[in-house]
Amino acid sequence: MSLSLADIEAGAERLKGQAFETPLLEFEALNDRMGLRVLLKAETLQRVGAFKFRGAYNRLVQLTPDERARGVVAFSSGNHAQGVALAARLLGISALIVMPRDAPAVKVAATQGYGAEVRFYDRLTDSREAIAAEIASQRGSVVVPAFDDLHIMAGQGTVGLEMVAQARALGVELDLVAAPISGGGLLAGLATAIKGLSPDTAMVGVEPEGFDDTRRSLQAGERLVLKPTGRSLCDSLESPFPGVLTFPILQQTVSDVALVSDREVTDAMRYGFSTLKLVVEPGGVAALAALLAGKIDVTGRKVMALVLSGGNVDPEQFAQVLRHEI
Amino acid sequence: MSLSLADIEAGAERLKGQAFETPLLEFEALNDRMGLRVLLKAETLQRVGAFKFRGAYNRLVQLTPDERARGVVAFSSGNHAQGVALAARLLGISALIVMPRDAPAVKVAATQGYGAEVRFYDRLTDSREAIAAEIASQRGSVVVPAFDDLHIMAGQGTVGLEMVAQARALGVELDLVAAPISGGGLLAGLATAIKGLSPDTAMVGVEPEGFDDTRRSLQAGERLVLKPTGRSLCDSLESPFPGVLTFPILQQTVSDVALVSDREVTDAMRYGFSTLKLVVEPGGVAALAALLAGKIDVTGRKVMALVLSGGNVDPEQFAQVLRHEI
Repeated sequence: MSLSLADIEAGAERLKGQAFETPLLEFEALNDRMGLRVLLKAETLQRVGAFKFRGAYNRLVQLTPDERARGVVAFSSGNHAQGVALAARLLGISALIVMPRDAPAVKVAATQGYGAEVRFYDRLTDSREAIAAEIASQRGSVVVPAFDDLHIMAGQGTVGLEMVAQARALGVELDLVAAPISGGGLLAGLATAIKGLSPDTAMVGVEPEGFDDTRRSLQAGERLVLKPTGRSLCDSLESPFPGVLTFPILQQTVSDVALVSDREVTDAMRYGFSTLKLVVEPGGVAALAALLAGKIDVTGRKVMALVLSGGNVDPEQFAQVLRHEI
Repeated sequence: MSLSLADIEAGAERLKGQAFETPLLEFEALNDRMGLRVLLKAETLQRVGAFKFRGAYNRLVQLTPDERARGVVAFSSGNHAQGVALAARLLGISALIVMPRDAPAVKVAATQGYGAEVRFYDRLTDSREAIAAEIASQRGSVVVPAFDDLHIMAGQGTVGLEMVAQARALGVELDLVAAPISGGGLLAGLATAIKGLSPDTAMVGVEPEGFDDTRRSLQAGERLVLKPTGRSLCDSLESPFPGVLTFPILQQTVSDVALVSDREVTDAMRYGFSTLKLVVEPGGVAALAALLAGKIDVTGRKVMALVLSGGNVDPEQFAQVLRHEI
């Protein structure tokens, strides 16, 4: 059982009138700097400020009436939380989200703002999976995974359908597409959509330093579980392992995984501010950071696209970035 | 001699492949807050980060070979400067821009980055018009006005053509359109385009407090020249008078002018950051600020649009806004 282009096209039908078709933006300063056309898929402008709404809605809208009545549970550092919370609100489903106590305040507030109940856990001492499983069994609720689920991946893959169509409307084919990797749901969905429509497009993933579980797993040929020794600025990309369902798709489709440092991420956030006029969160800017840092090989490429996957960042953190304090 | 819809349509032809068609964005949080659909024309994503490129290119591309050879001169606090500088570079014309010494550093650097020569003047003691006129006569250069010019207005008016077409692609008509006013070039162009295509759409202008020259002039029925007693945070909206050519158009088309305080502007910049994920400069956010502050009467309206006219803001100033320091 794997993900197909048809699954993603069916997801796109379900998302019609629910998710936005976000713009595919182009900036000459970026083209000039990189020496090729770079198209930016601004999922920062998606509902909830991140692509995660797509997968969450595609999952929740397929629950049975009985499942809907029993509510949903999810765990997430923030963007999946918001996606599930909003999708649940739209569908009249109650949602409980298990979030780390140190999640960005803006993500917690938005999740609660969409009407979800938030239960906090401690990253160091608690197992969020265990907490979520316990609540789910008490309430009979469905657990909505952040990435390891075909409907979630199919929803995220709709980003790729739009990218290919929008690029073709500009009269171009995409030579390469890059996106950040946490558990791999976005990249697995994207790759399935894009390879399905445009088999010659190269797919590149980007991980933060210290959370290079997917790169290592791809090198090893098997899923490895990382033991993180620190935090990344990219709070949304800290998954220590690729998914059971996402990994085989990444194995078949991804040609390279680049790693970015916190410094490269803050440089890219400042570039987003001053040149693109876009607010992009640390994890959301990872693919752009890798490109700007010369870590994505664009030799011989004419047109590439990348996903700016989220824009949910605390104002204080963004001010620190603007002032070069981090 | 006034501006016609045909002039703007001809401008749009000249701008094809030069200016971007910027997205018309929608955010449910904003719709929910205001109780109607609010479509945002993101000219922050235009080349040079502001709508000003449109008018400047439409003006410069119509210079004769002889005029092009003698170069152009302009004066501007920043966005027109960048528009002229980039248009001149694209057309192989040399450009000299007279800018206030206290213009935002990001605007000065970008203007120079596009290859223009910058001459500074002192807001308090120098006359920028006199400096520009003297240079123009020495060099035989054409002075490119910031707003009081039919080709400039026609270029800015292309924003309006796109807004109407993009709204219709969403299946809606615009009941009301709001935009900031400095000298009135954007609003005069917009109003001509929009009233030409959609006569029932109400046009509303927004000025910063202390620079309400257009509102007072409309009330008086004649162009008044203000004596500013202070500065506004909206560095791009500090014109002390409406234009000779813009004013009669505004008289015929504008139903209301709202005024916004610096505090309302910073509130709207923070809203832009946290909810829209967009970087908008103080002057560029004025229309949104007026809407959020309840200063635009939307009673009975179902769909409105407004222009986010520019995103060129110094990182330090933006950090201060995020930290509520201003």
